[in-house]
Amino acid sequence: MMKKVITFGELLLRLAPKEYLRFSQASSFDLVYGGGESNVAVSLANYGVSVDFVTRLPKNYIGECAMMEMRKHGVGVDKIVWGGERLGIYYLEVGSGARGSNVVYDRANSSMATIKRGTINWKEVLQDATWFHWSGITPAISESAAQECLEAIKAAHELRITISTDLNYRSKLWQYGKTPKDIMPELLQYSNIILGDLDTAFFMLGKNKVHPDYQDEKSLPVLYDALFQSCPNLITAATTLRYSIGASHQQIGGVLYDGKSIFTADVKNVTPVVDRVGSGDAFMAGLIYGLIHNVDDQQRALNLAVAACCLKHTIKGDANLVTLEELEKLIGGDASGSIVR
Amino acid sequence: MMKKVITFGELLLRLAPKEYLRFSQASSFDLVYGGGESNVAVSLANYGVSVDFVTRLPKNYIGECAMMEMRKHGVGVDKIVWGGERLGIYYLEVGSGARGSNVVYDRANSSMATIKRGTINWKEVLQDATWFHWSGITPAISESAAQECLEAIKAAHELRITISTDLNYRSKLWQYGKTPKDIMPELLQYSNIILGDLDTAFFMLGKNKVHPDYQDEKSLPVLYDALFQSCPNLITAATTLRYSIGASHQQIGGVLYDGKSIFTADVKNVTPVVDRVGSGDAFMAGLIYGLIHNVDDQQRALNLAVAACCLKHTIKGDANLVTLEELEKLIGGDASGSIVR
Amino acid sequence: MMKKVITFGELLLRLAPKEYLRFSQASSFDLVYGGGESNVAVSLANYGVSVDFVTRLPKNYIGECAMMEMRKHGVGVDKIVWGGERLGIYYLEVGSGARGSNVVYDRANSSMATIKRGTINWKEVLQDATWFHWSGITPAISESAAQECLEAIKAAHELRITISTDLNYRSKLWQYGKTPKDIMPELLQYSNIILGDLDTAFFMLGKNKVHPDYQDEKSLPVLYDALFQSCPNLITAATTLRYSIGASHQQIGGVLYDGKSIFTADVKNVTPVVDRVGSGDAFMAGLIYGLIHNVDDQQRALNLAVAACCLKHTIKGDANLVTLEELEKLIGGDASGSIVR
Amino acid sequence: MMKKVITFGELLLRLAPKEYLRFSQASSFDLVYGGGESNVAVSLANYGVSVDFVTRLPKNYIGECAMMEMRKHGVGVDKIVWGGERLGIYYLEVGSGARGSNVVYDRANSSMATIKRGTINWKEVLQDATWFHWSGITPAISESAAQECLEAIKAAHELRITISTDLNYRSKLWQYGKTPKDIMPELLQYSNIILGDLDTAFFMLGKNKVHPDYQDEKSLPVLYDALFQSCPNLITAATTLRYSIGASHQQIGGVLYDGKSIFTADVKNVTPVVDRVGSGDAFMAGLIYGLIHNVDDQQRALNLAVAACCLKHTIKGDANLVTLEELEKLIGGDASGSIVR
Amino acid sequence: MMKKVITFGELLLRLAPKEYLRFSQASSFDLVYGGGESNVAVSLANYGVSVDFVTRLPKNYIGECAMMEMRKHGVGVDKIVWGGERLGIYYLEVGSGARGSNVVYDRANSSMATIKRGTINWKEVLQDATWFHWSGITPAISESAAQECLEAIKAAHELRITISTDLNYRSKLWQYGKTPKDIMPELLQYSNIILGDLDTAFFMLGKNKVHPDYQDEKSLPVLYDALFQSCPNLITAATTLRYSIGASHQQIGGVLYDGKSIFTADVKNVTPVVDRVGSGDAFMAGLIYGLIHNVDDQQRALNLAVAACCLKHTIKGDANLVTLEELEKLIGGDASGSIVR
Amino acid sequence: MMKKVITFGELLLRLAPKEYLRFSQASSFDLVYGGGESNVAVSLANYGVSVDFVTRLPKNYIGECAMMEMRKHGVGVDKIVWGGERLGIYYLEVGSGARGSNVVYDRANSSMATIKRGTINWKEVLQDATWFHWSGITPAISESAAQECLEAIKAAHELRITISTDLNYRSKLWQYGKTPKDIMPELLQYSNIILGDLDTAFFMLGKNKVHPDYQDEKSLPVLYDALFQSCPNLITAATTLRYSIGASHQQIGGVLYDGKSIFTADVKNVTPVVDRVGSGDAFMAGLIYGLIHNVDDQQRALNLAVAACCLKHTIKGDANLVTLEELEKLIGGDASGSIVR
Repeated sequence: MMKKVITFGELLLRLAPKEYLRFSQASSFDLVYGGGESNVAVSLANYGVSVDFVTRLPKNYIGECAMMEMRKHGVGVDKIVWGGERLGIYYLEVGSGARGSNVVYDRANSSMATIKRGTINWKEVLQDATWFHWSGITPAISESAAQECLEAIKAAHELRITISTDLNYRSKLWQYGKTPKDIMPELLQYSNIILGDLDTAFFMLGKNKVHPDYQDEKSLPVLYDALFQSCPNLITAATTLRYSIGASHQQIGGVLYDGKSIFTADVKNVTPVVDRVGSGDAFMAGLIYGLIHNVDDQQRALNLAVAACCLKHTIKGDANLVTLEELEKLIGGDASGSIVR
Repeated sequence: MMKKVITFGELLLRLAPKEYLRFSQASSFDLVYGGGESNVAVSLANYGVSVDFVTRLPKNYIGECAMMEMRKHGVGVDKIVWGGERLGIYYLEVGSGARGSNVVYDRANSSMATIKRGTINWKEVLQDATWFHWSGITPAISESAAQECLEAIKAAHELRITISTDLNYRSKLWQYGKTPKDIMPELLQYSNIILGDLDTAFFMLGKNKVHPDYQDEKSLPVLYDALFQSCPNLITAATTLRYSIGASHQQIGGVLYDGKSIFTADVKNVTPVVDRVGSGDAFMAGLIYGLIHNVDDQQRALNLAVAACCLKHTIKGDANLVTLEELEKLIGGDASGSIVR
Repeated sequence: MMKKVITFGELLLRLAPKEYLRFSQASSFDLVYGGGESNVAVSLANYGVSVDFVTRLPKNYIGECAMMEMRKHGVGVDKIVWGGERLGIYYLEVGSGARGSNVVYDRANSSMATIKRGTINWKEVLQDATWFHWSGITPAISESAAQECLEAIKAAHELRITISTDLNYRSKLWQYGKTPKDIMPELLQYSNIILGDLDTAFFMLGKNKVHPDYQDEKSLPVLYDALFQSCPNLITAATTLRYSIGASHQQIGGVLYDGKSIFTADVKNVTPVVDRVGSGDAFMAGLIYGLIHNVDDQQRALNLAVAACCLKHTIKGDANLVTLEELEKLIGGDASGSIVR
Repeated sequence: MMKKVITFGELLLRLAPKEYLRFSQASSFDLVYGGGESNVAVSLANYGVSVDFVTRLPKNYIGECAMMEMRKHGVGVDKIVWGGERLGIYYLEVGSGARGSNVVYDRANSSMATIKRGTINWKEVLQDATWFHWSGITPAISESAAQECLEAIKAAHELRITISTDLNYRSKLWQYGKTPKDIMPELLQYSNIILGDLDTAFFMLGKNKVHPDYQDEKSLPVLYDALFQSCPNLITAATTLRYSIGASHQQIGGVLYDGKSIFTADVKNVTPVVDRVGSGDAFMAGLIYGLIHNVDDQQRALNLAVAACCLKHTIKGDANLVTLEELEKLIGGDASGSIVR
Repeated sequence: MMKKVITFGELLLRLAPKEYLRFSQASSFDLVYGGGESNVAVSLANYGVSVDFVTRLPKNYIGECAMMEMRKHGVGVDKIVWGGERLGIYYLEVGSGARGSNVVYDRANSSMATIKRGTINWKEVLQDATWFHWSGITPAISESAAQECLEAIKAAHELRITISTDLNYRSKLWQYGKTPKDIMPELLQYSNIILGDLDTAFFMLGKNKVHPDYQDEKSLPVLYDALFQSCPNLITAATTLRYSIGASHQQIGGVLYDGKSIFTADVKNVTPVVDRVGSGDAFMAGLIYGLIHNVDDQQRALNLAVAACCLKHTIKGDANLVTLEELEKLIGGDASGSIVR
Repeated sequence: MMKKVITFGELLLRLAPKEYLRFSQASSFDLVYGGGESNVAVSLANYGVSVDFVTRLPKNYIGECAMMEMRKHGVGVDKIVWGGERLGIYYLEVGSGARGSNVVYDRANSSMATIKRGTINWKEVLQDATWFHWSGITPAISESAAQECLEAIKAAHELRITISTDLNYRSKLWQYGKTPKDIMPELLQYSNIILGDLDTAFFMLGKNKVHPDYQDEKSLPVLYDALFQSCPNLITAATTLRYSIGASHQQIGGVLYDGKSIFTADVKNVTPVVDRVGSGDAFMAGLIYGLIHNVDDQQRALNLAVAACCLKHTIKGDANLVTLEELEKLIGGDASGSIVR
């Protein structure tokens, strides 16, 4: 049977000056629509997976444009709910070299942030699904979004749907009076797959990462095991390794633990960087695709994730507009960027 | 002595698709910063008037860009207060012919809307001023903005500063539980100059415009006199006459009453229309300039206002980037648009 | 039950210099995707009609982009067949005033032109449909396209689906050795609705329009009756009236005959013209919408068609990106193009 | 034998904000190269006439770009001389409606202005020519340019080459201490064809236009005869009639006198105006083409001139990028701007 | 005597999304005109060589624009023949880092592909020439193009004109039922200079590259000698060395054999890459220039070729818009990219 | 007391093709305004220093735009004098890799070059200042500019204002008959801070750099001491170290001598390079800021200078639009260019 994935989260309008201009130099903003969970949905649609994106959008021209962009990329939009006042925005100034990119969030009071618990009939939305994906951004934007996220998770769990989570910690969010450790432990207990570094995981779970048996990388499993103990449904945990040499030069690798073994992927140099926003989401989508299509091949899932993450850096916009064939080519070792003609 | 004008209101970021594209066709937005009262300030600066714009802006890159744009045009920005979370936005889709322009407001919870009464030390701000301008937009955005506007007005009145008001009714605002008639009568009682059509004026004052002595245009003074009675400090009332033949063709005239006589300006055809947003503000600024510089020549003030309004339609953006010489040329009857070389 | 419309035809890539530049001045081409029948599909999707577009596209990046654009606008794309070598192109240089627009066709050997009879399983494609739309362009591009069009028409007729046809005569096509009168009479005999002027209709049917009883406009029905006699399934015939005052000024009206009465719509001035390509398709879509939703109100169907045609002139691109509300506003007499805010 | 035309003058870089932006709104300038006499050359090349443009350009990247643009349009560039320091510039702000276009000249000390008498070997340059064209701009830019212009004129006259002149009065030029009447009478005495209104002609000749026998338009020939007396080689005098309704609406006609009869062309409405710069040069080129190819048909020459002038208003840039077929179409009465497809 | 070069081949329209956008993100295409042999012509014109480009272009606006672009760059266009239906197109998506560029060809049935044997009067075209250049693309596009290419080669050979060939193997071409080894051996037997790697050369000649005496790089001459034996007129064979580290980083060197000695050029790093299309043509043009101007200095010819190839990577478009001075600077060892001011 | 800086120099219009296009490929120029001394002023304003820029601008639209750009960035413009004919221009073609950038100057006869001695009332201009900055460009553009520069320097010296100088040698200037050694010694004797490499310093002072005691880097102080002897008011001398690996890769360090000790900053890699113009001015401004705010910490001043210089390479335009926080981050060792969100 065709696997059907549902991703749930906020869709934002991104406004960015052209090229490497600073905000004060801009006379126009390039616009794209994106968000952690919609980026995962677009990636999966590109890989041929049947996927629906669930969110709440304002019933105005801007909300409709956001939906149309998802539809253009083959993501199902029929389960989107309409209401609220505004589409959240983030302004992005793209850096270069030693000058980092800047993000100005303007997403408070968005339609997604003002969603109420119970707005979405999750039983119905998830009825044909085999996979549900959410990220740590949704519980960070408002208390009611966190509540609705929990509703979704519980429904998915009841329906025995696989649940994946990208921890996605954003320090500028979590402004509504709760901290991650107040909210995330309950949500994460249902997760079967978690993406995120261990520091973030333990921080969100309100735990101390220090472990008596940890000495060096070889004893990494003891840390992961501690994570698995906190998240009883956890099957796979993965981390993007990212070393930032500069805004234009990143190094990308990955680690995956399946409860038994550690899998690693070689660190790849990524330079130049066209756009690094959404590279974590690209990793997540590669991982999901691999776990769906190659159930017993964790190494391949990790390789897909890392390749997707690397290629995302060459794509403008939030979403990773690459094909499976392009992932395979890079996994196969061809990073030559040569032209076929 | 050099006249010093203070205008007070909200500054917005305008995001508009290029040319006549619909929102769903846009891959970028042209950006300008504007707002009714800042537009008046820019116009006055263009005419050589010393002018400061007072508002509240968020202390982030976007707020700074908004301020820099005012400063670029020679408007004083030292009295701007910094705080709050966001710069308000309006999305503009420019129409053509029978297709009108569309505006999507996203200005709730802006730094200006969340201003608190007493944020600004009006005594200090107004100490060198001889003129204070506000519009009906500020009391429409939030209760606290309305309160701070009243503080400003009272301080100006106490300091015997001339107060001008553009009624600027926006039906999509006034969302905070009050209607114009709850708020505006108190504010308008201090106004010395009011711009707005009589319907709007009576609506805002909560009065019925029907008057027993009104029969036709010749008895227009009886309506204005009723307005003057409601606004004890009123000296001059003016109205923009606007007939919209289509998004690309407007007809613009004006009426002014000084408590004794009606002055009118011939209706001018304006076609094509490059951008009609801010044309009322252009009228207001022309009027203020005229009333400052030609105290006893109401006809000239009206002519300046109408010429400014007409020329604004040829300028992209909210602000009327024209010179006094250009106003004079049009008042002098030269609408030929010919090149001098 | 929800009406389901199928439109069938070629989708082209349009390449146009920016603004009013001539080809020799262009350093880039703006690109849109369009075509008579896909334009009808996009319009209907905008009006909330369930609609699928059927065509044949090359399985390369350009073909995929064309499909994605349809999908973005909510047109069903699942019935598109993939094959062939290329997407047809037309180059468009937009005129102004007395300088007309220029079209350079480069559509020979497109995937649609090389479609073979039997490529599409029409029984299956049309199974849920209640309306089938085709135009005179498809039989003009190649003999095999004409054959496949006939297959579609016959299948639709058998399934008792309403068939609408836009005559769409293009003198630069019909290059494969057949003339309209060799091909069109057989195809048109199944049409229930025909859009096109009478000269074109009689020309395509290989008939002489001269009629002994025709004297002036009042005897127009005698001509239409002759058309109805040639097309035994015809129920409604309509014509766009178009007077071209210049590339920037058109006058648009319409005539409709339902076998009994002549309906007319007032001629409207359309100026300026942003883009007149696709205005006939906009008329067609308005007509179809009206005939579907207001079965007994031919005047309303005509009004919708004319309003849609007028508004298309204000929209860049082939497709008429307007809403039903905008049609209603214009039908209601509001051509003022005013802003609501 | 193929007619060979030589035009002589200055080539300028035009820098213009996009669309209708004011200078202070521009973040980029669109660039074109143009000038009265080069515009005539490009027009003639478009009409299939063999034509060389003679000027002096700086030997730097900017000068080379200017030359390449001429070459692109098929104008001979082998006779251009290289030297001097800079290419002259003019900044153009395009107006709309009642706001006229603005020109800022920055052309002093250009390579053409600093040309020395004798720089060009006119005998050689003109050896294959049958027509020489110059305009009143060249003697206006510097004394040495005026001298070199006279050299050219004398050489052409000696070689019995037809000489045409566009009076092209520019009040912002003539800054070098001489006035037109000091310089132009000597130059104009060799002209066989003069384009310009009579006021300008008499002003440049230092004569009073008032004539005892002139009463109304019917006695126009008496004025022209006076002009002919001052210019002993004059055969044809023509004038563009231009009424400026606004920057976006011009009315264009023409008058021609051949020493015997007055010919006139109907005034045509030109709206909207894409770019009116160079429309006089377009008129001139149409006239030259007509006088070369239809020696005895003055009316046709005038019609070509007026049609070319009208169409220029629809073309961006200085040069009139239209074809003979387009002129013929407009002369034939088709101003419908319709698309052929 | 001035050397006169003729290059013969197809001219294509290149359509490319802006910057690094993927096809599905493009709302416009940047356009340039190019092709292997026209690129060589433009390079030679830049270096001051008299050069004509011969091709067949459609007589429509697009064909004319292609010609104008050649003319702009100083390439002779008088020998171009006009006819056929269309200009071939290639769509280019520019890659970055590990994501390679993509090319979609749409060049079937172009005016050049449908050229007939005998269309061009080669005796006449070549009469003043001293050098004729063709590439392996022309015989790859259609059988008749291959035939006309052979006609040209034979005529050149008879006229004792030097013949150079770039092997330019394109696997996506050769679609007309012949393979390189069916066609190329006859054509290559007249070549005096061949550019291409040995694998391609032997493949096209239908030979096995394996040679009993070849062991390592030192015995490279034995392979070249085998090539010389297959091509009896061969004097010089050269190869571009290219190592693709990624789409943004190339390494470029070269090898040349003159029948006696191997010449090599140091491999240079080229990063970043602005546009690598046409870098082989740039190498070819540098080689031709060197062989024409420095007959006995093969090392210099190779150095010029490699320098030109490197610099091409910094230029947008197909053609290598650099000067001889820039080549010399790089050959001289200055790759610092410093500004002179 | 707030330190007040005055910088004095020429403001130029920069015209540059988009991205990496060559001049001959440009259809538009991006425009910025800049110049060595205005760049210093903008930097200082960004760092919160009160600063005025003094220059002479033409009273036309272009001059006004230049002033508005300074005002936008918070630089005081009230002391600018208006007059003269033109704003100087420089055309910039941005290089990449081994292809260097090209500059074409067109700045002769600018309003600044034609300034007369005594135009500016320096006593008044400098009355509130504590720092005066000039560079070697001003005395290079014309004799009268050199004279006025001397007037300024003398006035500053009399007022005991700190004087800083960037040697800024431009070989393409100095065209008015004087060489640096004729002019600079007198000007430099008043300088308290000099930025420039020692070769340039000695060249400008007309001295031989060879020194008997100089052996290697360790004896660098002997050279600096010689410089200090020639410039009796000198307190601090600094040099930017710049190694150009290519147009896209620079290495930046710095050296400072305070009469006692040598301070050095580590050489940093800067790649890619967005725009290197103005990086020396950025260094200068960082130095000035450091010397003003950290009087006794020469190492910190140098670090600020080097960090500012590095970051400038990531900013498009002449001026270094970075904040103090960004300088601090880089000085603190964070060159990761990571995003905070």
